[in-house]
Amino acid sequence: MTNAEDALAELTAEVRRLGDHVAVSQVIASYGPLVDTSDRIERSTVLAELWTDDGIYDIGGVGSKVGKTEIAEGFVETHFDMVGSGVAHIMGLPFIEISGDSATALCYSQVMVPEGDRWFAWRVAANLWELDRTDAGWKVTRRVNRLVGPDDGAYNVQKTIDRLNSGTRS
Amino acid sequence: MTNAEDALAELTAEVRRLGDHVAVSQVIASYGPLVDTSDRIERSTVLAELWTDDGIYDIGGVGSKVGKTEIAEGFVETHFDMVGSGVAHIMGLPFIEISGDSATALCYSQVMVPEGDRWFAWRVAANLWELDRTDAGWKVTRRVNRLVGPDDGAYNVQKTIDRLNSGTRS
Amino acid sequence: MTNAEDALAELTAEVRRLGDHVAVSQVIASYGPLVDTSDRIERSTVLAELWTDDGIYDIGGVGSKVGKTEIAEGFVETHFDMVGSGVAHIMGLPFIEISGDSATALCYSQVMVPEGDRWFAWRVAANLWELDRTDAGWKVTRRVNRLVGPDDGAYNVQKTIDRLNSGTRS
Repeated sequence: MTNAEDALAELTAEVRRLGDHVAVSQVIASYGPLVDTSDRIERSTVLAELWTDDGIYDIGGVGSKVGKTEIAEGFVETHFDMVGSGVAHIMGLPFIEISGDSATALCYSQVMVPEGDRWFAWRVAANLWELDRTDAGWKVTRRVNRLVGPDDGAYNVQKTIDRLNSGTRS
Repeated sequence: MTNAEDALAELTAEVRRLGDHVAVSQVIASYGPLVDTSDRIERSTVLAELWTDDGIYDIGGVGSKVGKTEIAEGFVETHFDMVGSGVAHIMGLPFIEISGDSATALCYSQVMVPEGDRWFAWRVAANLWELDRTDAGWKVTRRVNRLVGPDDGAYNVQKTIDRLNSGTRS
Repeated sequence: MTNAEDALAELTAEVRRLGDHVAVSQVIASYGPLVDTSDRIERSTVLAELWTDDGIYDIGGVGSKVGKTEIAEGFVETHFDMVGSGVAHIMGLPFIEISGDSATALCYSQVMVPEGDRWFAWRVAANLWELDRTDAGWKVTRRVNRLVGPDDGAYNVQKTIDRLNSGTRS
């Protein structure tokens, strides 16, 4: 290849990496509005489309749901009733690592719920997202969600920053 | 065109899309610090520069302000007094869709206020931002802000994720 | 240069700017998980690696720490004990300005702490981050953190948005 072709190939790879970063951020950003409008199975089924067919949602204090159907049904008892009174799943700034056709992201989530004329944090959790590039875009293969508290759950999720951080390009 | 020219044109379009994503994110990120230092009309006038001349700020529980002057003046009674005791408008991770010279973004906002040695959520809202590309950068043509609660306001804003999500490139 | 070379050079500069934006965002996003797992000096030493050798962490209500060793040790008395019961430093959407080999970012932070079956905001602060590009990636040269409240501290940090905003490309 010529130097110009080399430069273009290098630039194309970097643009792809940045585009992947944005795309993964979008998946995470879409979770809140999707779950906060999931008040019936038709909607939580749309929400579950964020995952791959055999994707896992491992929820702190609730348990592990495997596959889109189980994930969609997982919201029936624990979540549908909250939507009517208003709920906001707010995602903090994610740390995202792209590695070829896989990605890992780490972020905090806050679930805010109204009470009188204020809102309170009903859940604060650490989240590890693992995603794969698919023909339908980036999809979640596994999300681990752990409530921030005295047990080791969230701590172990938070600690994955060590692995992610060391793998990051400068 | 040659193949190299095709590749460069495609790459240029993708870089433009990513640059637009970042630019829209910057507009949203600047809102908090600008409003939280708006304790007089001179400053809320600077804040109102985030909008286009005939831009709309449709605020849950307050009403709709049209045009920069009305938006700037809209903060006089509802907001200026809060700045002295400290206030933080914190934006959650936005979902952003770029479509040519227009953009739409969806994000949660939390307004945190000090009380004793803690802070509490004085407002939690869902926000729909519509923006246009102008000669002065991306400007807000309409922002709809709805308090998360039992009425349909926030739910309808949150539900725009369906439309945005379906329009997103993989 | 030919037109094609010009176009490629321009595109390369823009991609570099976007890559820098993402890289600075990653530094900020990594702070939370790193500090929230810092329960001993070995871990706060890793956390302090976010700074340059003579970097400054100027913490509202605590004081100014200079250099990695002092920063790492700064967490011993004020922070280590919190990790065991769970803590989440959540970063809001940052405004980031890249200027050659330097960068400035502005964002809010919330420190959420569990209490009974809820979480409360133990600190809400405005943060100014100044970073330099180094051989080991973007590193923090100075972070100013000020609690949102009635004194001028946070207000002055928040007001840096004026300078940043005016320097931003459209």
